[in-house]
Amino acid sequence: MAGEIDSGRLLDRIHLLGQIGRTAQGALARLAGSDADKAGRDQLVAWMHEAGLEVAVDAIGNIHGLWRPDPDMVANPVLSGSHIDSVINAGIYDGCLGVLAALEVVQTLKESGYVPRRPLGVVAFTNEEGVRFQPDMLGSLVAAGGMPLETARALKATDGPTLGAELDRIGYTGPHAPGFLRPQAFVELHIEQGPVLEAENLRLGVVDTLQGISWQRITIEGTANHAGTTPMPLRHDAGAVAARVITFLNDFARAGKVAVATVGTIAFAPNAINVIPARASFTVDLRDPDETRLVEAERALAHRVAALGKVEGVRVASQRLARFQPVVFDAGIVARIEASARARGLAWRRMTSGAGQDAQMMARVCPTAMIFVPSHDGISHNPAEFTAPADIVAGAQVLLDVMRGLGEG
Amino acid sequence: MAGEIDSGRLLDRIHLLGQIGRTAQGALARLAGSDADKAGRDQLVAWMHEAGLEVAVDAIGNIHGLWRPDPDMVANPVLSGSHIDSVINAGIYDGCLGVLAALEVVQTLKESGYVPRRPLGVVAFTNEEGVRFQPDMLGSLVAAGGMPLETARALKATDGPTLGAELDRIGYTGPHAPGFLRPQAFVELHIEQGPVLEAENLRLGVVDTLQGISWQRITIEGTANHAGTTPMPLRHDAGAVAARVITFLNDFARAGKVAVATVGTIAFAPNAINVIPARASFTVDLRDPDETRLVEAERALAHRVAALGKVEGVRVASQRLARFQPVVFDAGIVARIEASARARGLAWRRMTSGAGQDAQMMARVCPTAMIFVPSHDGISHNPAEFTAPADIVAGAQVLLDVMRGLGEG
Repeated sequence: MAGEIDSGRLLDRIHLLGQIGRTAQGALARLAGSDADKAGRDQLVAWMHEAGLEVAVDAIGNIHGLWRPDPDMVANPVLSGSHIDSVINAGIYDGCLGVLAALEVVQTLKESGYVPRRPLGVVAFTNEEGVRFQPDMLGSLVAAGGMPLETARALKATDGPTLGAELDRIGYTGPHAPGFLRPQAFVELHIEQGPVLEAENLRLGVVDTLQGISWQRITIEGTANHAGTTPMPLRHDAGAVAARVITFLNDFARAGKVAVATVGTIAFAPNAINVIPARASFTVDLRDPDETRLVEAERALAHRVAALGKVEGVRVASQRLARFQPVVFDAGIVARIEASARARGLAWRRMTSGAGQDAQMMARVCPTAMIFVPSHDGISHNPAEFTAPADIVAGAQVLLDVMRGLGEG
Repeated sequence: MAGEIDSGRLLDRIHLLGQIGRTAQGALARLAGSDADKAGRDQLVAWMHEAGLEVAVDAIGNIHGLWRPDPDMVANPVLSGSHIDSVINAGIYDGCLGVLAALEVVQTLKESGYVPRRPLGVVAFTNEEGVRFQPDMLGSLVAAGGMPLETARALKATDGPTLGAELDRIGYTGPHAPGFLRPQAFVELHIEQGPVLEAENLRLGVVDTLQGISWQRITIEGTANHAGTTPMPLRHDAGAVAARVITFLNDFARAGKVAVATVGTIAFAPNAINVIPARASFTVDLRDPDETRLVEAERALAHRVAALGKVEGVRVASQRLARFQPVVFDAGIVARIEASARARGLAWRRMTSGAGQDAQMMARVCPTAMIFVPSHDGISHNPAEFTAPADIVAGAQVLLDVMRGLGEG
């Protein structure tokens, strides 16, 4: 049975791709639609050709490498993949692992003489990171029918040009309509980007849900006044109110009422040491795998903000920045991942994906699930991002088992 | 009895000086040592000459206008004044009121034929605001012997040149050694810059203390991590710790344990919506008229920060930015101010100065006190700064009574 990937080839490719798109200072930055992105894409396409796959690019730049054992085979394919665009000063694993492991799996199966009942395919989605073009997870969103192609191509980069123009420029506006492949199933291998697997000394995460995400900006408007001459009872201190909201949210999440709550950005105005803040603005990132709990957290936050606004005599406003409902992945694929982990003797646990993923878009159109491998110290989006080679290989082996099983269906 | 000032002349001068040093956009900005400062100083000196005062400038640019009824009179003078430098986009009253009211008082007494037993003088101190040169209250600090002249003249402006070079350039490096006048007493009329008098429907503040000020910067160093994938118990969230400290301080001051506590500035790093803050830095402004209470507040803050640091697994550091002990003004002058307010039927209260003032420096060298008049809505350092003409006149009248009384001593 064709069961073992070429781990040296996989690890080499991850390191080779990780050298493409570095700045003069050595930082990895393969932002979507950039010259660096083109260089990475060209290398991926070369490897797909080397593996004997049919390469098909769609009009939003998603790259597919398809193995159709019989050129007349019309069954829907089993797809696996992720993305190869990166953040600024990135690590080498995020996204790339999922694409290159899928390539390794399909290439291994193909070279072994094994013949699946369905086509097997590799996909690299455009602009998952959302650094240069918003929103993130864009290529998979368009492929899943969540945004019209023309809307997506008209999105403007942070540095000016549209995504469509950039894809034209780097030669990755393909002839296919996004979503043309109609996959039978999708499975994505990814680094955890969190500390849980390592902390629990586990090798594999069987990802059965993906957290819902609620992003908002809250703005408190009080009154600027002299810090020395304004008695406490006469103040309308926007900064102090913001601090109370942040403390409330932190306590709320620590009490287990929502999975995670984070205030990552804040600004005071006028931001002077001896002036009571007239305005405090901060972002709130709430996540939970359960939609009911996520809605409850949003409500609790809104109530607290409104109540503080009344008591403190400040105006409050909130602006929704992003909202994704939680995703429950396909139980059948989840069971296949568990079966493979068990068979291979890998210590594993079920878990939720805390980050957004291309898989959440694909879950809209076909049975989908994810496999996580450990992230050292939970670090990602950073040059220190690291997953041990043995964990990479183990994850790719499980992916092979799952794709082969799905390819039989 | 020569008791009534020329209120029209005083109000006119305040408005005339308030037009000098405006930007092309109309904003008032008479920063110390600038061309605008020179224009304001030239106008003040012209008025001093018009009043028949001896003008004496010292080497740090403090301008004195002295009335010596007998040219041989050697008794120490009674001084009154404040400053005419301003913040950027200032109001017209802060500082200028104190200088021009003192000028009006001396001019009124002189013109009335009244003869004091001591010289009476007006002073405008250099760089009270501290916008272009730090520290603030510089001219009075040097006059009181708190900083060597050469150190002060070597201070660099935010835009480059030294204070000494700028004073040379605008012609206000005078021949006198700072402190040459050895005043018998100092009294300063100033706008309250706070809302208390207006809120209590009072006309006058008898300022018997000046709050001690403690400024520090607190920095919390935690660990940046993914907002979606890092469980709450594994976080070291510098921003959440900062919020807890700010809330603690706000509660502490509201409970009356320190007069006022303000966090006016804050910054998170990396300041990204989906990244747990690795660093949070904020300033703390604590003030109290009682040194024991101020020290106790500093201790309570330090204890809370250290305790949170341990519990949350974050590093904490604090940096002292400024520290002034509280000042208790002279009981005799305070009593004279009260007596005048009572005699003139002005509703008044004793109060503390929440802001730093030139008077706190003069209190190091001679009996000193201050008179406050109401600030509409407590606003200062802003074009909306306003004190009603009747309150200005009332304050200047009280200043006249007090200076005349002191001039008899």
